[in-house]
Amino acid sequence: MHFGAELMRQADVLASFTEDPPRITRRYLSPQHRQAGNYLIALMREAGMSAGFDALGNVVGRYASDGSQGPVVMTGSHQDSVRNAGKYDGVFGILTAVACVRDLHQRGKRLPYALEIVAFGDEEGVRFGATMTGSRAMAGTFDAACLDLADDDGVTMREALRTFGGDPDGWRDLDRRGGNVVAYVESHIEQGPVLLNENLPVGVVTGIAGTTRLRVAVHGQAGHAGTVPMGSRRDALAAACEMVLAVEHHCGTRPDLVGTVGRMSVLPGAINVIPQDAEFTVDLRSTTDTARRAAAQALVARFADIAKRRGVSVAATEFFAANAARCDPALKEALAASVAEQGIPLRELPSGAGHDAMVFPPVCPTAMLFVRCGNSGISHHPDETMTAADAEVATSVLLHFLEHYAPPRPDAREARELDGLA
Amino acid sequence: MHFGAELMRQADVLASFTEDPPRITRRYLSPQHRQAGNYLIALMREAGMSAGFDALGNVVGRYASDGSQGPVVMTGSHQDSVRNAGKYDGVFGILTAVACVRDLHQRGKRLPYALEIVAFGDEEGVRFGATMTGSRAMAGTFDAACLDLADDDGVTMREALRTFGGDPDGWRDLDRRGGNVVAYVESHIEQGPVLLNENLPVGVVTGIAGTTRLRVAVHGQAGHAGTVPMGSRRDALAAACEMVLAVEHHCGTRPDLVGTVGRMSVLPGAINVIPQDAEFTVDLRSTTDTARRAAAQALVARFADIAKRRGVSVAATEFFAANAARCDPALKEALAASVAEQGIPLRELPSGAGHDAMVFPPVCPTAMLFVRCGNSGISHHPDETMTAADAEVATSVLLHFLEHYAPPRPDAREARELDGLA
Repeated sequence: MHFGAELMRQADVLASFTEDPPRITRRYLSPQHRQAGNYLIALMREAGMSAGFDALGNVVGRYASDGSQGPVVMTGSHQDSVRNAGKYDGVFGILTAVACVRDLHQRGKRLPYALEIVAFGDEEGVRFGATMTGSRAMAGTFDAACLDLADDDGVTMREALRTFGGDPDGWRDLDRRGGNVVAYVESHIEQGPVLLNENLPVGVVTGIAGTTRLRVAVHGQAGHAGTVPMGSRRDALAAACEMVLAVEHHCGTRPDLVGTVGRMSVLPGAINVIPQDAEFTVDLRSTTDTARRAAAQALVARFADIAKRRGVSVAATEFFAANAARCDPALKEALAASVAEQGIPLRELPSGAGHDAMVFPPVCPTAMLFVRCGNSGISHHPDETMTAADAEVATSVLLHFLEHYAPPRPDAREARELDGLA
Repeated sequence: MHFGAELMRQADVLASFTEDPPRITRRYLSPQHRQAGNYLIALMREAGMSAGFDALGNVVGRYASDGSQGPVVMTGSHQDSVRNAGKYDGVFGILTAVACVRDLHQRGKRLPYALEIVAFGDEEGVRFGATMTGSRAMAGTFDAACLDLADDDGVTMREALRTFGGDPDGWRDLDRRGGNVVAYVESHIEQGPVLLNENLPVGVVTGIAGTTRLRVAVHGQAGHAGTVPMGSRRDALAAACEMVLAVEHHCGTRPDLVGTVGRMSVLPGAINVIPQDAEFTVDLRSTTDTARRAAAQALVARFADIAKRRGVSVAATEFFAANAARCDPALKEALAASVAEQGIPLRELPSGAGHDAMVFPPVCPTAMLFVRCGNSGISHHPDETMTAADAEVATSVLLHFLEHYAPPRPDAREARELDGLA
């Protein structure tokens, strides 16, 4: 095995940079972020790259091209984690790319483009509540208001950046739009069971799902559990349960759509009192924005029907929405060719989870490779697993892609850029 | 108006004996229990009764019979309240009886039995978690283990009784079985909407529902809300919602059965995570024990079917059960005659809520009068209401009943007691 075993070992090292051992929690701008960053910088330098932290705490490594003025290909993923995380979410996408560069470097091989590997400081958004701040800065969509968000201890992102040694005002200089970046490609564990169920080590991502989140409040009438006849009840929980099943049914009978009710609370919440209020969340995802919006609309209408029939009231509020990001057809095809080269059947699949890749389309064509996740596809959990064998395959695919990727000629790039302005 | 306005005023005074003004909370053996008891003792004495606290803090008033060796009729209700209670639950049943005695006393009228009015110290069980301890002691079903139950501050019932001036070991002497008690009759607000919906001030209770309570735990599999296809999910909350609707449907399509899911909790409870665990309670009530037991059995089987189909596991545990208490036909008939005397159509209805009356059958025949509850029948809540006009009617009904009730002859009583031994 050329890459796999070493990658697993490196992931174990990164797992040791945690705020709450034996669990893994590594938040943006924590001391453990710095430790992990220093480790990655060392790995990158050993692999023949120049590397360092940027103004927002992203680690950026650069493997120079075979010419001095070549275009740039970017890859990488995030170094930060959720609370009580697994070992591979994010981290794998960084390590697999560094392994490719090390291999190229050992062979003395340069590419017709500069390859940059980024370990994004903040994708999960656990500390300050704003997600993908590192990649957004590079995509020109960083919201400076984020800098004033505070963590649980009241420390703002701005203060934390200064303590970390970063530069809160430096985000403007990180914008890579128009900067000769021709592709962004990210490897990531699937965080779901599709590849596992189909016995495939890797798959090519078609697009990253957009998300709509609703908060739904049902208001009925409290009453004594023993004294109000069934026919006279306006039970907020029973109504909410019917709505939950409506979400499940609606999403389960349409392709490319998932819907989840992850939270549910009931008031007054006493054994012998008919619920007066029930509140729940709905998380809808689809790689097709129209399908997602139609589902949200249909469900809100369905909730109203259910509420009306039951004599309760319902209020559904959309509190978050993000559009889907489609992967670039040509890059997808190139990744597919590299998968085929490993003798693996092609499986294209959407990404239901958000990733740094989804903010890159304003910069350049974007693609993603998914790697099989063990344990039924569990992620964001200590039970998240992947195998050294799959890490080997995925790294071989990425390396093949990087070695065979031909950047478009400058005139084609210009055409694309003009196209983008139209 | 002879009784109503004064009763409402007295209920207002009792409401002022509260642990957390402006809300009403009066727990067993609290200083406010003592204040309320002293107020009731004064009312009873003014009404021509002897009165005092017993060993467990119940207030017992006695209106002597027209003969020295007559039988005893008992009435009353509880002085304690839930947290943030209404003004009439329990309290009304005490005040209406005292008003009857005051009227008899003013007319110089004695009855062919001694009338005892009890203000039970502890029906709701808020402080120590054991319900109806006062009435259970009188019915010979007091569980001495209750004395070691502690409140939120770690004070045991035994200690609280001593502080109150009671006698923790005195419960044995309160047992009224075989003590010449020939009837127990309790007036109580309905705590439901039946009389309100039918525009009736009072109704005669057929029986007090028995209760079965289940705790149901559903265990599925957590997963990322975006990455697990709908068909691969084992969503604990969706399964629980189907079970909640099964409870509603089952109880809604059978007579004399109500079922309530009052609590529901979800883990991990994150917007973007498929629920791994859902736990909820079921409260089933019926005046027919066989119907209630059959419902519990059928629902547990239905839960298992739902769980099996969805690939989740379910565990349902019965954690509380109490049998129904049937009201005595002869007493019911006598109450019905007193209702008719007021020109009010007879409405018989079950009591879904538990009451002190339900523990009295080991002592004597038992009956209850329900009084209309306003505000859609809301109770255990500050919005609980009743009108002075209904208080007037209900008190007139009780007074008529008391004046016309003829205790069974001693030989008939003996026959009944022998019957009870068979």
